[in-house]
Amino acid sequence: MKETPCPFPKVFPSQLVKDDLFFMQMAYNEAINAWNLDEVPIGAVIALDGEVIASACNRTRQSGDPTAHAEMIAITMAAKKIGDWRLNDCQLFVTKEPCPMCSGAVIMSRIGEVHFGFLDSKMGCLGGAQSLHELPKSNHTPVVSHGTFGEECHALVQAFFQLQRQKKDLR
Amino acid sequence: MKETPCPFPKVFPSQLVKDDLFFMQMAYNEAINAWNLDEVPIGAVIALDGEVIASACNRTRQSGDPTAHAEMIAITMAAKKIGDWRLNDCQLFVTKEPCPMCSGAVIMSRIGEVHFGFLDSKMGCLGGAQSLHELPKSNHTPVVSHGTFGEECHALVQAFFQLQRQKKDLR
Repeated sequence: MKETPCPFPKVFPSQLVKDDLFFMQMAYNEAINAWNLDEVPIGAVIALDGEVIASACNRTRQSGDPTAHAEMIAITMAAKKIGDWRLNDCQLFVTKEPCPMCSGAVIMSRIGEVHFGFLDSKMGCLGGAQSLHELPKSNHTPVVSHGTFGEECHALVQAFFQLQRQKKDLR
Repeated sequence: MKETPCPFPKVFPSQLVKDDLFFMQMAYNEAINAWNLDEVPIGAVIALDGEVIASACNRTRQSGDPTAHAEMIAITMAAKKIGDWRLNDCQLFVTKEPCPMCSGAVIMSRIGEVHFGFLDSKMGCLGGAQSLHELPKSNHTPVVSHGTFGEECHALVQAFFQLQRQKKDLR
């Protein structure tokens, strides 16, 4: 069956105010890119000093690689961009609460701050199902927050899975 | 300062008995490869139906990529090899208990069994510091065990860090 292009439009926030909403909207646009690749619509950007230094969407289906989540790709890109695997001064913005793997990657890459759109009480590991950022003996504790543009990020994922179920019913 | 080649020899188990010890020794040899690349000596192999389908060592320093742990590289290789991101029938053998990221990747790639050499009570997330394989709402629960060839795997890491400290003292 032919894939359905994402029915949600991208957002174009002003470049003049680079706040959490701005970066979350950049991540949201990446999630739309994921949908248009027939991937679960999750997107991530990494910012440093108010600039986006890495931007990626989920690519697991396309690549056949279970590690190709948006956050993982963005972390690899950011480390390459700054020439250092330690991302202490960076901020990760991601549409959904990171899964166990990506939450772990946040700790291992020492990302300073994480902001995610909506909680995942099933598999999220930055407060939802588990709190990997609070491992007592860890060398690194990122600042974690969530909510900005979260409803829009959630609506995108919900609509994607609803469509997947409809397609399945039609088979 | 010139790097010190790994003083521990590789092991060459018989191909006739492909048990946990055989695969752990293959992972140990990968850890020696890591040492010789000046990486923290951790190695991993993934087996399917008694054959090694992926084999990798830690490459974080060399690549400057905090996600380039032995397990992550092996998971990507295995998924590519079998043409499926779901690794339910595969077994991962790794010299050290996986970190938060790699433990999460085990869950996300649905690896059926994990055997690791030695526990990491600080950062290990398959029973040591945390138990990501026991997330109550997860779709996947791998079988986890440890210990085989563990002392040898641990000795390698201890010797590597001891040498790093000596080099630091000489600077």
